Amino acid sequence: MEQNQPQFANDAERMAADIEQIHKLASQLLPFYSFITENNTLEEPLINAQLQMLIGVLHELHPADVALVLESLPPKERVLVWKLAIPEEDGDVLLEVSDAVRESLIESMDTQELVAAMEDMDADDLADLVEDLPDNVVQEVLKDLDEEERAQVQAALSYEDDQVGAIMNFDIVSIRADVTCEVVLRYLRRFDSLPDHTDKIFVVDDHDILQGVLPIRKLLVADPEDLVENIMAREVVKFRPSDDVVEAATAFERYDLITAPVVDENKKLIARLTVDEMVDVIREETEADMLNMAGLSDEEDLFAPVWDSVKNRWVWLAVNLVTAFVASRVIGAFEHSIAQIVALAALMPIVAGIGGNSGNQTITMIVRAMANAQISTAQAARLLKKEVGVALVNGLIWGSVMGLVSWLLYSSVGIGLVMVAAMTLNLLLAAVLGVLIPVAMEKLGCDPALGSSVLITAVTDSGGFLIFLGLATVFLL
Amino acid sequence: MEQNQPQFANDAERMAADIEQIHKLASQLLPFYSFITENNTLEEPLINAQLQMLIGVLHELHPADVALVLESLPPKERVLVWKLAIPEEDGDVLLEVSDAVRESLIESMDTQELVAAMEDMDADDLADLVEDLPDNVVQEVLKDLDEEERAQVQAALSYEDDQVGAIMNFDIVSIRADVTCEVVLRYLRRFDSLPDHTDKIFVVDDHDILQGVLPIRKLLVADPEDLVENIMAREVVKFRPSDDVVEAATAFERYDLITAPVVDENKKLIARLTVDEMVDVIREETEADMLNMAGLSDEEDLFAPVWDSVKNRWVWLAVNLVTAFVASRVIGAFEHSIAQIVALAALMPIVAGIGGNSGNQTITMIVRAMANAQISTAQAARLLKKEVGVALVNGLIWGSVMGLVSWLLYSSVGIGLVMVAAMTLNLLLAAVLGVLIPVAMEKLGCDPALGSSVLITAVTDSGGFLIFLGLATVFLL
Repeated sequence: MEQNQPQFANDAERMAADIEQIHKLASQLLPFYSFITENNTLEEPLINAQLQMLIGVLHELHPADVALVLESLPPKERVLVWKLAIPEEDGDVLLEVSDAVRESLIESMDTQELVAAMEDMDADDLADLVEDLPDNVVQEVLKDLDEEERAQVQAALSYEDDQVGAIMNFDIVSIRADVTCEVVLRYLRRFDSLPDHTDKIFVVDDHDILQGVLPIRKLLVADPEDLVENIMAREVVKFRPSDDVVEAATAFERYDLITAPVVDENKKLIARLTVDEMVDVIREETEADMLNMAGLSDEEDLFAPVWDSVKNRWVWLAVNLVTAFVASRVIGAFEHSIAQIVALAALMPIVAGIGGNSGNQTITMIVRAMANAQISTAQAARLLKKEVGVALVNGLIWGSVMGLVSWLLYSSVGIGLVMVAAMTLNLLLAAVLGVLIPVAMEKLGCDPALGSSVLITAVTDSGGFLIFLGLATVFLL
Repeated sequence: MEQNQPQFANDAERMAADIEQIHKLASQLLPFYSFITENNTLEEPLINAQLQMLIGVLHELHPADVALVLESLPPKERVLVWKLAIPEEDGDVLLEVSDAVRESLIESMDTQELVAAMEDMDADDLADLVEDLPDNVVQEVLKDLDEEERAQVQAALSYEDDQVGAIMNFDIVSIRADVTCEVVLRYLRRFDSLPDHTDKIFVVDDHDILQGVLPIRKLLVADPEDLVENIMAREVVKFRPSDDVVEAATAFERYDLITAPVVDENKKLIARLTVDEMVDVIREETEADMLNMAGLSDEEDLFAPVWDSVKNRWVWLAVNLVTAFVASRVIGAFEHSIAQIVALAALMPIVAGIGGNSGNQTITMIVRAMANAQISTAQAARLLKKEVGVALVNGLIWGSVMGLVSWLLYSSVGIGLVMVAAMTLNLLLAAVLGVLIPVAMEKLGCDPALGSSVLITAVTDSGGFLIFLGLATVFLL
């Protein structure tokens, strides 16, 4: 990715300018979409010049950039641009785009184009795409593979998306421990090219049992006469296909790994993991937490049709509606009190609101800490204590402020005192449940982030109304 | 990180067990903290056995694991464990822990320990720590460096934390273009060890101007007689020290990079970036978005003293209190209406709540898309249109459901109809501001995530009350 255009200070600016230009050209060309010929030309010279400009910009881009462009385009423009991309890179682009966008791209391709795009693809990448491809394409593609590759695709398909087996890569270079570095270097020279990200060579015995790894860094500085077994590392971070990908990614992050071996239950080397996949896992995981907290599924095409978005969001909206209804019934139970002191209606949302905000702060911290594996059950108790402390301090400070304001506003000491008490109690409730909800979710085997923001708000709303109106009814009426 | 204990299925489980054990031992040993001698022993044999066990577990751990353990410990236990860690690894651990925890660790060390920990540290790492170190330690450490290293530390310090210059690494291997691969291999063999993550060697001319890069993968398969200039890659993703780190990390992610050169304005090679730093940037950036949305600063020690946490959170709680007060005054303005129809008090939180939930869904999506650089201004208009569409559909569907429920509950068609209208309008408000708030924040140069959840909730609360009570006052009274 040379920055051929010296006017851009960096890659990000160049990319932004390219996206802007492609968007503009694509929307101008959209009316002429159906007139674009097989060899990507148009009759009208001026419009054709625009088309050729678009193709020019597009073909300069790395497949990952093309993927980014496609994700940022509305559906119709996306199909137009996709049609103009370099066919040989179609497979790489499909691997890079988000699931939602991938579906729409695959829908726009015919069988022949799809089969061509899958050619020369690695088994693990192929397995990623297989579930999105039409059956006849899958059969066609599998037919063209040799026995070993087919077995690899099957293996990759047999694991869940969140297991190491689903993203492991079969492109491995392995050597024996009893040879010299000289021999290794000669052996490597026989390859046309080494697999991407090769930072270490796997050392195995006659039965492919992993003995250690030979980092390229060590190989390059070693005496050519040195035996591999004398310089290889025997302590290796290794994974099993059934391991959780998020845990594997955390290990990559912690130990600064580039690649790592995947072994079966007998320590037989079967594949490897590479850091580029792990970076994707880290980003997706953290983003998924953020989206899940707000009650969004983690895959929504930004420009999805309205109806798709409605479906993506309706579950948590429905949950919210139910909880809001419960909160409403809590208030309904105190209608008699509100009828007597209307000020209560105006003050109650303050109690609920501050509880919701504070609860969200707590739950966000806990969800993040859980993702980083910083919380054991013993810890939870300690965190609870701390959060309760924070809530007590905040409740007394901010409760007093609002108590004073309410007192002045409604000239009633009673209302002021009820306000202090209700705010403090609701903040305590928020703190307790801000810790307990994610811990309970985890215990139940759910994702602690899932809708946690919606749930904590539900608790602090209903709880806040109940506490405030309840105290008011007991002490003010 | 060999999994020496075969009873653990994987690294994550082993780590969790280690953390649990260290926590237990540390809290048992805490009362004896002041009796631990210089050489880490205790008089009482039984307690000493526990101490030795703790030291044993601790010394088995990778510095990154020690960092994780320290982050998950409460302050007092943390200092105890820190005192027992391998002194030679102190520097590595300090680099790995979060800023908040790092401060507490440095506070517990004396000048001598700190100077020792900084020995043999790379310039870029040293620069990371300098701002947290006491002045006398910094002077001591700088004194021990040679001229070049001191210049590197100064260079790293002259950049902001969010600039490439602050995390670039000076440990580079460079060669000339006009030599053969054989010569390169011989040259590399003269090193004691190559820098971490070396996946490519930088090719420069006599004036250190970057000409290209020689990937190790290509070097290893090349004919020894090949000239570097014939096999090096000339198109290189490169960065400037003033570039934004998040943009650099995005480029690493997109182009699957392991290392990349950093050059000055004359393309002179000055340093490199490595993927391990970029992984940290990606995680921190996404997490910061999540924390910022909830109104938390991105650095809170999980076990910080209550008072520190209160300070970390009070700004957004105060903002929330002000906005809640505004919402309360909106209701106050309609006290007359509520006094006449008390049901309004019970129904109004439903309108506000669904708006808040839906607005949070929208704003979360937009903030995420902005972080991934998917949104240009032209896009914003299109997204707005889509979100308005989603809001209209949701408003009509869920508004009708709640309208029906309200009608049945209060036997009033009027209340039902006001409910439908108010919910639809508040969802539209949530959609419009869910897009506009982050776009405006970005335009103003603020982080779009910052407090966005608090802000959207403020709008949908006040707005929801105003719309619902306003409509009710006009049509029902």
